[in-house]
Amino acid sequence: MARLRVAFLGPLASFSHQAAAEAFGKISASLLPQLSFADAFVALQNQEVDYAVIPCENSTNGSVVQTLDLLADRNDDYKDVKVCGEYYLTVHHCLLVHKGSYPSGWSGYDGSITKLYTHPQAWGQCEGVLSKYFKGVERQDVSSTSKGAEIVAKEPTEKSAAIASRFAAEYHGVDVLKENIEDRADNTTRFLILRNVLAARTAELDLGQPKATASDEQPNTHKTLISFSIDHASPGALASALLIFKQHGLNLTTINTRPSLKRAWQYIFFVECGRTLSEENMDAVVNALQDLQNVTESCRDLGTWKDQLSAQTA
Amino acid sequence: MARLRVAFLGPLASFSHQAAAEAFGKISASLLPQLSFADAFVALQNQEVDYAVIPCENSTNGSVVQTLDLLADRNDDYKDVKVCGEYYLTVHHCLLVHKGSYPSGWSGYDGSITKLYTHPQAWGQCEGVLSKYFKGVERQDVSSTSKGAEIVAKEPTEKSAAIASRFAAEYHGVDVLKENIEDRADNTTRFLILRNVLAARTAELDLGQPKATASDEQPNTHKTLISFSIDHASPGALASALLIFKQHGLNLTTINTRPSLKRAWQYIFFVECGRTLSEENMDAVVNALQDLQNVTESCRDLGTWKDQLSAQTA
Repeated sequence: MARLRVAFLGPLASFSHQAAAEAFGKISASLLPQLSFADAFVALQNQEVDYAVIPCENSTNGSVVQTLDLLADRNDDYKDVKVCGEYYLTVHHCLLVHKGSYPSGWSGYDGSITKLYTHPQAWGQCEGVLSKYFKGVERQDVSSTSKGAEIVAKEPTEKSAAIASRFAAEYHGVDVLKENIEDRADNTTRFLILRNVLAARTAELDLGQPKATASDEQPNTHKTLISFSIDHASPGALASALLIFKQHGLNLTTINTRPSLKRAWQYIFFVECGRTLSEENMDAVVNALQDLQNVTESCRDLGTWKDQLSAQTA
Repeated sequence: MARLRVAFLGPLASFSHQAAAEAFGKISASLLPQLSFADAFVALQNQEVDYAVIPCENSTNGSVVQTLDLLADRNDDYKDVKVCGEYYLTVHHCLLVHKGSYPSGWSGYDGSITKLYTHPQAWGQCEGVLSKYFKGVERQDVSSTSKGAEIVAKEPTEKSAAIASRFAAEYHGVDVLKENIEDRADNTTRFLILRNVLAARTAELDLGQPKATASDEQPNTHKTLISFSIDHASPGALASALLIFKQHGLNLTTINTRPSLKRAWQYIFFVECGRTLSEENMDAVVNALQDLQNVTESCRDLGTWKDQLSAQTA
């Protein structure tokens, strides 16, 4: 079989790159940086890649709405893209500076940094350090944490710093002024692994991810993501839709909401639910979808995959 | 009675200022700009102001997570703050430039703008124009759309532009290069009006907002916001909690989710529900809260207020 192609949000040395490298570490795969999440979805729909590794949620900052908006697929652009796996990456942010610019390190830091670069999500993950040491310092959003490290690497005269990983620091050759500046030591980003359901060559592939450890307390072995929209004017429709999951033994774990963009104050709901896969509930998702069609305007099965959380937190 | 004090997210001429001015237009009130949403919550909890007008949701961009995080009140800092009203402001964005810098207007625009300023939420509301005419142009987040207009007013030599309202353009004396650059003509921001429940002087006040028009099709006259968190390890708890709303005649209209920050992948849910207020369901919220205590880790009534949506869209 030809080498697998895995898309991730570039540039090189981004957290997405790191996640893709770890998730596909045991498989010989070409990791292909993309300019945007949308590019990754397009590449997958067109079968130019076999998988995409896309961040969907951070344990501190919450959902990545751009990913939800692509999964919402309001114009049917990505109708064959589904979730087939997940990967949890513990995120450690570092404060990175131009090589040699602060030779005495953090202990000798003089408060002279005047500009910070990072990805918008990262500001919210480092609020403690930012508000304590960098109050009022100019913040410049960049497309990736790695991009911030690259800018700092190229700016020898500026008093600027980037928030990015040690992985990015090593890649771009900059100094780590302070490490683990994230608010929470358990700061973790969940990535979804997506595939094209029409692609035969990825249908049966074992992604080689960590297996859930045997445990008495293993509530769900599999997760399923379902999206639906409801008629805003129909009272009770949302409650009825949610009840259907319970009726089919699908345990609601979380719900996300995005504007439908069809009409103001009408929403697309993303319901994630779990179950311990058994012979009895093999068809639970298909059956739930059938019932959902009666109470929703539209609904869609966005995939079922192995729950990796119990393995991670065990 | 002393003049009412209404907090909004400053600076002056922000959309929040405009919303506060319109919502309290019929009442003699002092409108007091705040440096952050958190400052508005603090001022309200300390009864330094009577009301706060805070954006919670945009019809295109979705929820304002900072507002949800303050309402989550994870450290019990704002325990007396509740929602008592809402206000819908139709958002029209304009591209603003330094006075006289583009004398031939948009029709003669030469593509020379190299930097754009606006509030993070506004980028997502103007993606059409931004991707068509300003692809690759540097974007600088600022704390308010009005702040962007102010920067452009003070930068005579820069080829920069701000995305902000006509209200802000007039306030800061800059030119409107292009108006209505928002993706959707119905782009509307919903503001919550908050009060301190211990403040006697705002207890019975009619906010003088538009009344819902009489209509055969008026599903809900009142809205209620309830937050709760559930034990992650308890299967079915979320479904059980949601079922309680239905059991008490509270019609779920939307659900938002934020990380609990107590433990990764544990959430605080914000459920908004509606009902047509009647003698029978006067106690529905109190009763629902009682039942919720049995299936949630914590739950909280964040207020009931008159639904203004039917008035707006009628």
